[in-house]
Amino acid sequence: MLSFRIIFLRKKVRGVKMERDNKVSITVIRRLPKYYRYLSDLLNKGITRISSQELSNMTGFTASQIRQDLNNFGGFGQQGYGYNVEELKSQLGKILGLDKIYKAVIAGAGNLGQAIANYRGFQDAGFEVLSLFDRNPRLIGIKIRDIEIRDIEELEPFIKENGVEIGIITVPKSSAQEIADIYVRSGIKGIWNFAPADIKVPDDVIVENVHLNESLFALSYFMNNKNDYIRRD
Amino acid sequence: MLSFRIIFLRKKVRGVKMERDNKVSITVIRRLPKYYRYLSDLLNKGITRISSQELSNMTGFTASQIRQDLNNFGGFGQQGYGYNVEELKSQLGKILGLDKIYKAVIAGAGNLGQAIANYRGFQDAGFEVLSLFDRNPRLIGIKIRDIEIRDIEELEPFIKENGVEIGIITVPKSSAQEIADIYVRSGIKGIWNFAPADIKVPDDVIVENVHLNESLFALSYFMNNKNDYIRRD
Repeated sequence: MLSFRIIFLRKKVRGVKMERDNKVSITVIRRLPKYYRYLSDLLNKGITRISSQELSNMTGFTASQIRQDLNNFGGFGQQGYGYNVEELKSQLGKILGLDKIYKAVIAGAGNLGQAIANYRGFQDAGFEVLSLFDRNPRLIGIKIRDIEIRDIEELEPFIKENGVEIGIITVPKSSAQEIADIYVRSGIKGIWNFAPADIKVPDDVIVENVHLNESLFALSYFMNNKNDYIRRD
Repeated sequence: MLSFRIIFLRKKVRGVKMERDNKVSITVIRRLPKYYRYLSDLLNKGITRISSQELSNMTGFTASQIRQDLNNFGGFGQQGYGYNVEELKSQLGKILGLDKIYKAVIAGAGNLGQAIANYRGFQDAGFEVLSLFDRNPRLIGIKIRDIEIRDIEELEPFIKENGVEIGIITVPKSSAQEIADIYVRSGIKGIWNFAPADIKVPDDVIVENVHLNESLFALSYFMNNKNDYIRRD
């Protein structure tokens, strides 16, 4: 009886997907970009239709998990037909916010900042990098793919004048909080942080951390504890 | 009665930690590097002793979760005293494999490869980058922090001659699998992959992926779905 009730509640939640107030679990959200990436690859290969089983073979997730994941957002598949690749990609794109363009800046124009500025994934993700900023006079004025490196002193007025929404942090750990404070003061809404520090910002500012050292430690851990290793993509 | 039995089994598992054959959950493992980072900061500040409550205030994890996490590996805390920072750091370091030195190479000496080569976290994580490799003749021969960029043709013999265990991939997506194949053929045991591709390798080779585009998509998702956002560090 209990399991019936749970199923019923789930269905109800699915039915009101547009006004859903239940949080989608972070692990589901983290899988969406992967689906999006695979769907893009399929479309590039001219494949227009795919079953959850075929998606399972590609991604390594189970077919049932895939159906559950996608059902969280309305369930676009049809029994016996599968998913329309283009439609699913476009729907996922909307969910991921890829149909909008966000203006971004990068603080820290060293190798990592330059690598990020050169990063081709930005267009796909709907981000446009307007400028890099650094305090090193030898870097100021140089262009990376037509993106100019400016003096860090100009960061705050530049953000305000240009309505920048995303701030990327590629400065050393010791300057990360200072940059985050400038971002918050200037009205930045989302921060992509590469510094190995947990920056403190108000609750309404989204922070996505890329802690490279933690990833490296995880690699080291699994080299030492092979039994704990489960292949994940 | 059921809950009693679970508690008993747990205790038993804890008791045989050295020969444990239960897999530690991936989420626990992912938190260890964070503990390690905080303990290093504490030690640098001269703090020698800390309670799970204080660790909780620093990390944002609950005190009970911290005790559970650390108990997975033997539980080094003492009631009423807390944790000895230096000892806990050293124990975690051993668990993470940071007491060993791994030889590493980087395939792809563009901005990202160079940023990685310059990355100070390597020493802390017990990795030593011996060389970068690229096919661009303009890069070959250049040194990044005393680390030479060599011709990609030399990658396989170099790995074999020097007993390299870790291979880093910072080439474009289209070359990622080719590099992974060279790594596997040469006897590499662990791969740190930055290419936005899921590389295929035998089960005994550890792969740690850094998918920057997925991180960026996640940021974009949360910008669009603020209600789903939960602050994580």
